Amino acid sequence: MIGYGFMGAAHSQGWRVAPRFFDLPAQPEMAVLVGRNAQAAQAAADKWGWNEAASDWREVITRDDIDIIDIVTPGDSHAEIAIAALDAGKHVMCEKPLANTVEEALAMRDAAERAAAKGVRSMVGFTYRRVPATTFARQLVADGRLGDIRQVRAAYRQDWLMDADGPMTWRLQKDRAGSGSLGDIGAHAVDLAEYITGLNVEKVSGLLETIVTERPLLGEGIGLSGTASTERGTVDVDDVAVFSGRFAAPEGGFSAVGSFEATRFATGRKNSLTIEVSGSLGALAFDLERLNELEFYDATLPSTEQGFRTILVTESEHPYLAPWWPAGHMLGYEHGFSHQVVDFVTAVRDGVSPSPSFDDGLHVQHVLDAVTRSSDDSGRWTSVG
Amino acid sequence: MIGYGFMGAAHSQGWRVAPRFFDLPAQPEMAVLVGRNAQAAQAAADKWGWNEAASDWREVITRDDIDIIDIVTPGDSHAEIAIAALDAGKHVMCEKPLANTVEEALAMRDAAERAAAKGVRSMVGFTYRRVPATTFARQLVADGRLGDIRQVRAAYRQDWLMDADGPMTWRLQKDRAGSGSLGDIGAHAVDLAEYITGLNVEKVSGLLETIVTERPLLGEGIGLSGTASTERGTVDVDDVAVFSGRFAAPEGGFSAVGSFEATRFATGRKNSLTIEVSGSLGALAFDLERLNELEFYDATLPSTEQGFRTILVTESEHPYLAPWWPAGHMLGYEHGFSHQVVDFVTAVRDGVSPSPSFDDGLHVQHVLDAVTRSSDDSGRWTSVG
Amino acid sequence: MIGYGFMGAAHSQGWRVAPRFFDLPAQPEMAVLVGRNAQAAQAAADKWGWNEAASDWREVITRDDIDIIDIVTPGDSHAEIAIAALDAGKHVMCEKPLANTVEEALAMRDAAERAAAKGVRSMVGFTYRRVPATTFARQLVADGRLGDIRQVRAAYRQDWLMDADGPMTWRLQKDRAGSGSLGDIGAHAVDLAEYITGLNVEKVSGLLETIVTERPLLGEGIGLSGTASTERGTVDVDDVAVFSGRFAAPEGGFSAVGSFEATRFATGRKNSLTIEVSGSLGALAFDLERLNELEFYDATLPSTEQGFRTILVTESEHPYLAPWWPAGHMLGYEHGFSHQVVDFVTAVRDGVSPSPSFDDGLHVQHVLDAVTRSSDDSGRWTSVG
Amino acid sequence: MIGYGFMGAAHSQGWRVAPRFFDLPAQPEMAVLVGRNAQAAQAAADKWGWNEAASDWREVITRDDIDIIDIVTPGDSHAEIAIAALDAGKHVMCEKPLANTVEEALAMRDAAERAAAKGVRSMVGFTYRRVPATTFARQLVADGRLGDIRQVRAAYRQDWLMDADGPMTWRLQKDRAGSGSLGDIGAHAVDLAEYITGLNVEKVSGLLETIVTERPLLGEGIGLSGTASTERGTVDVDDVAVFSGRFAAPEGGFSAVGSFEATRFATGRKNSLTIEVSGSLGALAFDLERLNELEFYDATLPSTEQGFRTILVTESEHPYLAPWWPAGHMLGYEHGFSHQVVDFVTAVRDGVSPSPSFDDGLHVQHVLDAVTRSSDDSGRWTSVG
Repeated sequence: MIGYGFMGAAHSQGWRVAPRFFDLPAQPEMAVLVGRNAQAAQAAADKWGWNEAASDWREVITRDDIDIIDIVTPGDSHAEIAIAALDAGKHVMCEKPLANTVEEALAMRDAAERAAAKGVRSMVGFTYRRVPATTFARQLVADGRLGDIRQVRAAYRQDWLMDADGPMTWRLQKDRAGSGSLGDIGAHAVDLAEYITGLNVEKVSGLLETIVTERPLLGEGIGLSGTASTERGTVDVDDVAVFSGRFAAPEGGFSAVGSFEATRFATGRKNSLTIEVSGSLGALAFDLERLNELEFYDATLPSTEQGFRTILVTESEHPYLAPWWPAGHMLGYEHGFSHQVVDFVTAVRDGVSPSPSFDDGLHVQHVLDAVTRSSDDSGRWTSVG
Repeated sequence: MIGYGFMGAAHSQGWRVAPRFFDLPAQPEMAVLVGRNAQAAQAAADKWGWNEAASDWREVITRDDIDIIDIVTPGDSHAEIAIAALDAGKHVMCEKPLANTVEEALAMRDAAERAAAKGVRSMVGFTYRRVPATTFARQLVADGRLGDIRQVRAAYRQDWLMDADGPMTWRLQKDRAGSGSLGDIGAHAVDLAEYITGLNVEKVSGLLETIVTERPLLGEGIGLSGTASTERGTVDVDDVAVFSGRFAAPEGGFSAVGSFEATRFATGRKNSLTIEVSGSLGALAFDLERLNELEFYDATLPSTEQGFRTILVTESEHPYLAPWWPAGHMLGYEHGFSHQVVDFVTAVRDGVSPSPSFDDGLHVQHVLDAVTRSSDDSGRWTSVG
Repeated sequence: MIGYGFMGAAHSQGWRVAPRFFDLPAQPEMAVLVGRNAQAAQAAADKWGWNEAASDWREVITRDDIDIIDIVTPGDSHAEIAIAALDAGKHVMCEKPLANTVEEALAMRDAAERAAAKGVRSMVGFTYRRVPATTFARQLVADGRLGDIRQVRAAYRQDWLMDADGPMTWRLQKDRAGSGSLGDIGAHAVDLAEYITGLNVEKVSGLLETIVTERPLLGEGIGLSGTASTERGTVDVDDVAVFSGRFAAPEGGFSAVGSFEATRFATGRKNSLTIEVSGSLGALAFDLERLNELEFYDATLPSTEQGFRTILVTESEHPYLAPWWPAGHMLGYEHGFSHQVVDFVTAVRDGVSPSPSFDDGLHVQHVLDAVTRSSDDSGRWTSVG
Repeated sequence: MIGYGFMGAAHSQGWRVAPRFFDLPAQPEMAVLVGRNAQAAQAAADKWGWNEAASDWREVITRDDIDIIDIVTPGDSHAEIAIAALDAGKHVMCEKPLANTVEEALAMRDAAERAAAKGVRSMVGFTYRRVPATTFARQLVADGRLGDIRQVRAAYRQDWLMDADGPMTWRLQKDRAGSGSLGDIGAHAVDLAEYITGLNVEKVSGLLETIVTERPLLGEGIGLSGTASTERGTVDVDDVAVFSGRFAAPEGGFSAVGSFEATRFATGRKNSLTIEVSGSLGALAFDLERLNELEFYDATLPSTEQGFRTILVTESEHPYLAPWWPAGHMLGYEHGFSHQVVDFVTAVRDGVSPSPSFDDGLHVQHVLDAVTRSSDDSGRWTSVG
């Protein structure tokens, strides 16, 4: 695993826990944790149970005893590491967003295709596809239970930037983070909308906006710790992204209308990734803040009996659920990371390409790029890719 | 009262009930109900308790024993009737939308200003301002409880058109209805967002879309009753409107970002007018399907105690509530029409201009017009008015 | 109408509004409002639109131009008035609880049966049976959608007594009110549970408790207005009632287990009458604070698709709904009183006994009495009646 | 760890994960898993990551390299194992219920006290105390935010027995399970109510009922797997328990009224442990099916602003939360087991008695016993202990 921030903890929990509940075709070993700061990397390795720590990822990706590289660094280093690892014949799991730019994402996709030809696998970490409720939502759509999709609303709302005196962090700097709420959380909203509906966004019209344009610098470099400084730095990424989209129409059908929002200023919404899909036969609604629940509306029932139904997606027949707890026992945020490990390891062993692929990650990057271009072009409808 | 559709029943209930609970400065008398079809008008007058029926509104507006004209006809006749009534010295209450076009709305606003100079009053019927929860929401914002407004989301979602074989009605014809979901229900979303925040939308970027473009004609004219026909007619109004907006920035402040939706294809949403406002100190959320409740988030509380609070807006200290029932006894849809009567009659007696004015109605019309123009111009940002 | 408290306003609204929406077989005329205080009665009659006021109910019940007596006085006068009115050949609608004691209720039931033999009708005002969601709940049970009923939970929770310094009122005096929360609101919980399930409570085990035993007297008599006094009076009715019950078993079946609560100390619950019914095939849940909604759980669906479904009971196919507003437009507290008028007038015209009958009211009185006896007997199971 | 059923998986996850997020004063090693069936025990040990397996717990508790015994067997063996382990000087964590009878629980409590005198620690596994929302609820009560407690309602509702043709299992046999829903889940409801309020139940009045009295035996022994048999066995434990309780009154204060329910027939409720506490200054409500949320009602706010507030108990300032994820990232069922490990290991290292103690477990057993005695005595109020 390369990297050891918040995502490192989540991925580690996935590797640690998955084999204890699921029957995997191979037992993953938590071999090496890599971080630039050797001391911090060692501390993280000890804490999270990795066998050893290292500070040079280039060396690690050449080691014969390493099969999989799991990348959890900030987005600006994804391309370099992932391409090198794939070229070195290592299977790669890469956190989202795939990259900070379309160019990097393209290069990564190409590397993934080259590698796949040699049986080397890659996956991008849109973990929210692996919340049982969202996986089940996709099944309902795929089974035709919603009929023709007419409208999709997807929003990822947080509020951790709402304090205008909150400090600068790398996530607010374009050169590190690529974009703001759009790439960080909007990417999830786009991917989840496409995953559940099985439809791709083709064009967008949108707005990126920075609400708080200057924030206090921290005395000791930019970061979440360090001494507060009286100086202020410029936030050059978006705080809020709102955009409309049109999905590819099924043959002879309607091009569904999408509404998207990504924000870190939604007061009171902590980690609310919501999606609502309206179809000709039914509807679905999901909120990540109640991740064990799926709202399903079946419009084929008698009119007196229709209503949004809160399905507790905790039955053993629901996706991923059987190895966990009895019905009604809740899963949490990190369970998706175990499911991701299950699917990745299974695909690698089965010699098939895991999903979502780097190509899927590239597509999302194209959507985000089109939103940025539309925002720069007075909101005009802009084609994806 | 001119007109006797669904809105006629609602306005009649307002006139009938308001004086039984509120202390009005004058007792309204339900004098004449006017409808083109004399027989139907008489039946409605009998049913709803109007003293008499008439078929010629031009005659009625000249009668000396008539003080107030209440207009509940489709939007295409609002301008003609309202202007004539105002010019005849009658106080006018006019259902929303004020008119089908900006031109008509402008003429009505001018007539209203001319009339006001002579002490003749006018009001447009954005009744949802008079749901106690929305009135209270505005008070919270006005009291500074939300701080600076950063984002506003307003959506009006219904699903009564979701059946692609549902028949044509006048609401789906541009020459009668002016627009589709945009003017019919989007107007409410815009007005309510502006009312609660106290901010006006200045520019918009949007999309109008017709999902079902052809529908069965009814054998006997266009209407909700009549024999079904095998012919199909063209729907030339929008089924769905999605648009972004920017609100006028307070001095030195931020221009709040708005997201709007109006749709009659939101499967499972029957009459869901939702609004969520995010501010620097708090947030509000409201849903017309739970109209006695207001969600309030106070971000000034200790972090461990913050949460969206479901306020039952049924306390005697809440707006409009004291004359009704004890706390916890629910109000319904039609109570807003009683509150509208109270405010209108009180303003007329006090010799002040009631709110919302025809000028407010014109402004909303400008917003809707800008959305239409933006939609026609590839979604480009378009100024209001 | 005899009486003019809070219930007088509600019943007046029922008489006033019902004929404006429903097609009644006869047009009720709001003839006389009777109150001991002539001046107050006249004011109420003027306010609520009764043709005249009177202060002597005995005289009014003999008038030839009066067909119906509607009793909305406190419970201690129900028996005398109702029996006299029935014996005088007037149809009687009587607010719940039917009476303050079983003895009175028995005499009323007997009078009702005598009267019925002569075509004179009577009904007791358990209005919450006429909330469309509860009526629909009963239909679902009657249609077998819940299967065998195993458990019923009914609670009526308010909090208006939670302030220990709140004043004495007649509702806290046994000689006026008969009992406290048990008779005032527990009666509704019992009646609604029985109405929805179609099953009668046969025995109970319960507890009555007074939480605040002394309260400030008001200087000018006992009432909600008047000068506060330094003296305190003794509350001799229950603040809280909690009891279990067993319902009559269907043949060869199970005697469903009931749990009941009535309280005026449920902090934050304003008017929350909740009921949840668990059956072998499904479940229902209702809360009067969201009275347009019914939760329905269909356990015959595939396990992955089961969930509590929030049915908006506002479709024209739902009970009582067709004459009101389009789907999704909410009804409020007072609509039940219109429905009550519809059913009462219809039954009177059709020459059938309206429901709930005085006998139903007597039965509820028996249940309350059994709870009181059980509470006095250390909670022992006590037979109803 | 002795035992390897469902609880074995949960406890294993606790031991495995706790040190990866929390800073423990000592690193627990997952040494030996003990099960009567050697092969199955070995499989479980491999799966869950225990170093070795064993089949003789008596031998294991004497091993010098073992410091802690974690008991997750059915209740009928708790006493024997726990007493032996404590006497052997091992710290003991024991799943709830502490025992199947008061007698056993008494012996265990005595053994725990003997052991404590020698610095040997013991704890009973009421894990739901360690859901952050319930721990925080207790803090709010302890801080006086609810004022005087007037009413407590606690219910644990499941529905996994609702199918009358579901098979017999050991949980339905009195000699194995001690009791039915009462001991299995009612114990949690009692403990959580007492934990949050800080008050003990002193007397109870209750009912135990078996709804389905005969169930199909399984051909191959009694268990959840095996061939179905045509024979039926008798269920001799309760399916449903409903009871009232009175809590110990604070000095000069009120003895709060409790309402309790434990059922496995609550159609649609999968694992719903709900508690609502009404106090003179506020109220709390919790549902285990939404375990990251706590509803808090602050009655000291202005009346217009009161409402149940949904606190997402995921802030770093909330109990147990800091080492986990950012705000709004959900915890699941098993996190309580990690928290239990943290508290247990910390107490052992600090040389203090962990909580809840065996004495707390004994107390709950006394409450359950009193409910049983009351049920056998026609529901009469029965003292606890």
